Amino acid sequence: LKKDTISPMAVRRLPKYYRHLVKLQRKGVKHISSAELGVHTGVAASQIRQDLSCCGEFGCPGRGYNVKVLQSELAKILGMTNGYTAIVVGAGRIGKALLAHFPFKKYGITITAVYDVDQRVVGKTLFGIPVYHVDALAKRLEEQPVNLCILTVPAEAVYELTEVLSIGKVQGIWNYTNAELPVCDGGPIVENVHLFDSLFSLCCMVTDKAGKNIGNEE
Amino acid sequence: LKKDTISPMAVRRLPKYYRHLVKLQRKGVKHISSAELGVHTGVAASQIRQDLSCCGEFGCPGRGYNVKVLQSELAKILGMTNGYTAIVVGAGRIGKALLAHFPFKKYGITITAVYDVDQRVVGKTLFGIPVYHVDALAKRLEEQPVNLCILTVPAEAVYELTEVLSIGKVQGIWNYTNAELPVCDGGPIVENVHLFDSLFSLCCMVTDKAGKNIGNEE
Repeated sequence: LKKDTISPMAVRRLPKYYRHLVKLQRKGVKHISSAELGVHTGVAASQIRQDLSCCGEFGCPGRGYNVKVLQSELAKILGMTNGYTAIVVGAGRIGKALLAHFPFKKYGITITAVYDVDQRVVGKTLFGIPVYHVDALAKRLEEQPVNLCILTVPAEAVYELTEVLSIGKVQGIWNYTNAELPVCDGGPIVENVHLFDSLFSLCCMVTDKAGKNIGNEE
Repeated sequence: LKKDTISPMAVRRLPKYYRHLVKLQRKGVKHISSAELGVHTGVAASQIRQDLSCCGEFGCPGRGYNVKVLQSELAKILGMTNGYTAIVVGAGRIGKALLAHFPFKKYGITITAVYDVDQRVVGKTLFGIPVYHVDALAKRLEEQPVNLCILTVPAEAVYELTEVLSIGKVQGIWNYTNAELPVCDGGPIVENVHLFDSLFSLCCMVTDKAGKNIGNEE
């Protein structure tokens, strides 16, 4: 079961496999081949076998992967069993929408605090989570370290905050701001949310289907 | 320049290439090789060449791709030059957050209307866009067809709405609901927004870096 590190490309695909396995398990499917998983996730079967082998040996020749075992191993690899804690910095529309709708708890993530500068929310709670002033962030991180930060502040506030988060030993930033965060060795890992990619994959498919794409000169 | 259809896997990667090309152009870079593009997008150079060749011939042996030309060709393929119109159905937290923060106009998409059931917003405007009651959707789509629907309603409202959107000849649905939408031949193409994938790619990297991943039994 030894592995080195998971490739940055595999990291992008593992959550998709996980989502599909959850669906399969709900349907009562016990085993799935890499070929079937490929059809549903849009990844080549050989790629799937490589991605999953680099995470351990879950396959069973002839029967495919055991859905339950693979799902639970992927949950570990995706960090769901680590009891990660997270804070939301920025209690604006996006921050509130995530707190209201994203099932963090279901996936093993506990939101411990929200930070904002707006005196109308500071000192209150949002969806049961206490809201603190951003000025308290550095000190509170020192006392109560967290694993993740969900960053939903305006772009102009990003640089200063990233430094506070880095010094506070936050390991990962889920970045909803438009700013490109500085990535530095030893600093937090940054994941930029690119809704752009999702919308323009859709537009690309719509365009392709409508035959308006390149190659049609009429 | 003839092509058949763009593979579902390439569709996922093209928006990433586009985003990176925009960055390069801002920096004044004129040409880029598939190898360099690969380093920045995490896609194998051979894959990039294949993805881009299926969309036409933009490469120039020895010099790589012309950044400006490739960006503008990708913009076409991604539908940015088609003058797409879109509606937002559901004026809750997510709908409002998207209207407030996502730069639709910048990418050639015009939001023409918002729909909701809440009498407090119906008849008013949100960020300059008129809000109509959902009951008016079928009739309005008949009179003024739109290309895309951004769907941010509660899951229980999804099935009825999908039928209305399908009959109304909406070509694509950007689905923010938790519901799996029924996909049918001739109906709208559905793109589900999976924030899950983004968050758990991050958690996977954090876990991997911390060495807590599978393979470590201690």
